Amino acid sequence: MSIAGRDGPFWDMIEGRAALPRSSELLGFRLIAVDPVAGTMDAEFQAVPQFTNAVGTVQGGIITAMLDDVMSYAGTAFLDGTHMLPTLEMKTTFIRPAPVGPLFGAGRLVHRGRDFVFLEGVLKGEGNRLLASATATARILPIPSQKE
Amino acid sequence: MSIAGRDGPFWDMIEGRAALPRSSELLGFRLIAVDPVAGTMDAEFQAVPQFTNAVGTVQGGIITAMLDDVMSYAGTAFLDGTHMLPTLEMKTTFIRPAPVGPLFGAGRLVHRGRDFVFLEGVLKGEGNRLLASATATARILPIPSQKE
Repeated sequence: MSIAGRDGPFWDMIEGRAALPRSSELLGFRLIAVDPVAGTMDAEFQAVPQFTNAVGTVQGGIITAMLDDVMSYAGTAFLDGTHMLPTLEMKTTFIRPAPVGPLFGAGRLVHRGRDFVFLEGVLKGEGNRLLASATATARILPIPSQKE
Repeated sequence: MSIAGRDGPFWDMIEGRAALPRSSELLGFRLIAVDPVAGTMDAEFQAVPQFTNAVGTVQGGIITAMLDDVMSYAGTAFLDGTHMLPTLEMKTTFIRPAPVGPLFGAGRLVHRGRDFVFLEGVLKGEGNRLLASATATARILPIPSQKE
């Protein structure tokens, strides 16, 4: 996948030309689709046994980590990779237990304010089964080394 | 550490006589203190480089995973290990970036209702520096294999 006119470290990372952040690698992140105009991103994650809680399903914070990734990247894509978006607060709703195996995240920018973005996301399992949803508020900070 | 009169799988796990859940092991969970009467738990976690985001600090979901652990275990301790507490919703506030290294979590039961518990937690770094806080609502479900 390649997006005409988009380059720089964020796009290199998202499109597989540079290493992912360590936490995205841990979560088995793989881009499915990104729309920087709409501010949406779809990605696949791989839930492995080391992510599971006492009852053998994926621990809630790890589910939140997958949602945080896809929401944050959706917002970063909307801002064309020129800013970072440190999350101020995030709320996750756990709808169904998440099993080990492939999980599918979708992140979306809800609104871009001057200094903040509002994001939302969902995590689904196989068969499009809704497992969790989340909302987040993040700051917009320029990346010092990037040209705007 | 041993707590007089407390036995069963939860206490064996928390006090190191049985294996931790895989996700707690991943997070480097180690019990510091637990008070089942008050419903509080303190634990140390180890943030490793594989938990970091693009700017080299611990990814928000991983911070949430540490908080989820200590909050959930605080509630489970209050219920004497006879119930599990699947989290319905959880909100995390990210106050300062969390560095790689030891992190300290404290979880507390705020209120036990008939079918739900309300929990809160904080995550601190070295020097007692507040990094994140969280609240959660969880269901109370009996563990089928446990005697009450």
